[in-house]
Amino acid sequence: MRIVVLAGGIGGARFLRGLKRAAPDADITVIGNTGDDIHLFGLKVCPDLDTVMYTLGGGIDEEQGWGRTDETHRVKEELAAYGVGPEWFGLGDRDFATHIVRTQMLGAGYPLSAVTEALCERWQPGVRLLPMSDDRVETHVAVTLDGERRAVHFQEYWVKLRASVDAHAIVPVGAEAAKPAPGVLEAIAEADVILFPPSNPVVSIGTILAVPGIREAIADAGVPVVGLSPIVGDAPVRGMADKVLAALGVESSAAAVAEHYGSGLLDGWLVDTVDAGAVERVEAAGIRCRAVPLMMTDPAEGLAAADMARAALALAEEVRAS
Amino acid sequence: MRIVVLAGGIGGARFLRGLKRAAPDADITVIGNTGDDIHLFGLKVCPDLDTVMYTLGGGIDEEQGWGRTDETHRVKEELAAYGVGPEWFGLGDRDFATHIVRTQMLGAGYPLSAVTEALCERWQPGVRLLPMSDDRVETHVAVTLDGERRAVHFQEYWVKLRASVDAHAIVPVGAEAAKPAPGVLEAIAEADVILFPPSNPVVSIGTILAVPGIREAIADAGVPVVGLSPIVGDAPVRGMADKVLAALGVESSAAAVAEHYGSGLLDGWLVDTVDAGAVERVEAAGIRCRAVPLMMTDPAEGLAAADMARAALALAEEVRAS
Repeated sequence: MRIVVLAGGIGGARFLRGLKRAAPDADITVIGNTGDDIHLFGLKVCPDLDTVMYTLGGGIDEEQGWGRTDETHRVKEELAAYGVGPEWFGLGDRDFATHIVRTQMLGAGYPLSAVTEALCERWQPGVRLLPMSDDRVETHVAVTLDGERRAVHFQEYWVKLRASVDAHAIVPVGAEAAKPAPGVLEAIAEADVILFPPSNPVVSIGTILAVPGIREAIADAGVPVVGLSPIVGDAPVRGMADKVLAALGVESSAAAVAEHYGSGLLDGWLVDTVDAGAVERVEAAGIRCRAVPLMMTDPAEGLAAADMARAALALAEEVRAS
Repeated sequence: MRIVVLAGGIGGARFLRGLKRAAPDADITVIGNTGDDIHLFGLKVCPDLDTVMYTLGGGIDEEQGWGRTDETHRVKEELAAYGVGPEWFGLGDRDFATHIVRTQMLGAGYPLSAVTEALCERWQPGVRLLPMSDDRVETHVAVTLDGERRAVHFQEYWVKLRASVDAHAIVPVGAEAAKPAPGVLEAIAEADVILFPPSNPVVSIGTILAVPGIREAIADAGVPVVGLSPIVGDAPVRGMADKVLAALGVESSAAAVAEHYGSGLLDGWLVDTVDAGAVERVEAAGIRCRAVPLMMTDPAEGLAAADMARAALALAEEVRAS
């Protein structure tokens, strides 16, 4: 079975770990969000790709969900001693090495997809990890700060401001001119199932879908497309998805996110059992919907994620058989 | 008193520390060798500039003489885990930060001289540290390896091969097209004394002198030019200067190095007391010569270096008065 998964960071990575357990023989291609990539200290940092790579490769800091385990921060301390920031973005010493290798390879002329493949040779994530595009796409957030309206990098909004101010708009700068990375459209065309993990529907999966050709390829693939709600009981499972949903005028509920994707894209939708009341509304929108436990909480997270993946694959079979 | 010092790495840096003690009120400009600069992991590394900066700024690893004190090597271990080398060049985590800041600034368009000034704002070395040139100069060494003649980067010869094979030639690639960095010729023209520390006469001071205009400016400055022999008792005080002297057909002796610089450049020369027998030969070459203790050995190194600096300044006064 060939499965294509569109993934953001922590939520996507943890779901993927469950999917690998649920479908150990599947051929999994992950299309990773690169809209939250950022240049820091002259280095190219790809937070979502790295979170997937580290999580599946066994190098992740399990507690915080991103970055390397057993990490130190000497490089960053020294950069601060030089007065060079930003200080609000956490880069550990081991993590720095990844960005140094990536930046060196990009500087030598390799596209991000080739760089990602090379990095994965070390991590052996057990999936094929593709960036959504080799072209630069950068998600900016329009906010009002000190009375002035300005656009900040997504990471500045998310990490520095901690989404503490309203987002007026979310703009994946460069997306309209970006091309899907090599292999992306082919993987979608050859997929048996396409899954949207409980990643952020706006700044993770939404950004991937903003790359021209990807949304169309998924809609035209003719295979079940099943998603998992990142909203449980009207609140995001993780992060601050409600903040960026509001910028799009989408209410923060499991049903509203399904409607936002729409039945033209989505065939099946899983909501948490606490949102069982939303099933009817989602199905009314033409999307088959089931309520199952959707909390990937530690310590049973790995098992819960596998159960969620099994439920998603079962729903996909239901869609196929219908 | 305005003093200009041409400096390589460890020897130059330790001498400078002594000079600062010997002449605390002097206005010292250091013209640093950049011929041993190297690009590693996509980062610009300037070993000699950093050794001077760290030594005078109190950040040096005193024992090894280069790199940062209290250093760890996590970034490098991770790079090795990615299969990315070279492994033979020791870069610590704290040191990495310097190269990251430098590379970022160079990438933003600042010349190396401006970058060096910015780095020194943190280190406050108490001297004005100028790279010999903002242009790329890279010292290559012609060697025979596995029966084949090839050119290797100086660092590969020095650090990886540990000068274990004969050097057929030393070539400061790019030097003939390089311009002195801003301030270099001005500092020489305004100097009251010009000093050559016991740095490597070929790959440190020789490379600086290979930048068109610098040798001429020193020869024409009309002020005492005094050097200290890096060879004591026919052996280098530190490093493998004999190896690179041989490539130039210069014997490894205190007198031969003075003759190599020549009386057109050098007015005074200090040899170690064990080489007192060389004084006559050096003076016969038209260079005033004195024998004083030249070993900057720990733990009294700081004091010994200050004594050496005092002897150099005294010899400069002798030259001036003559």
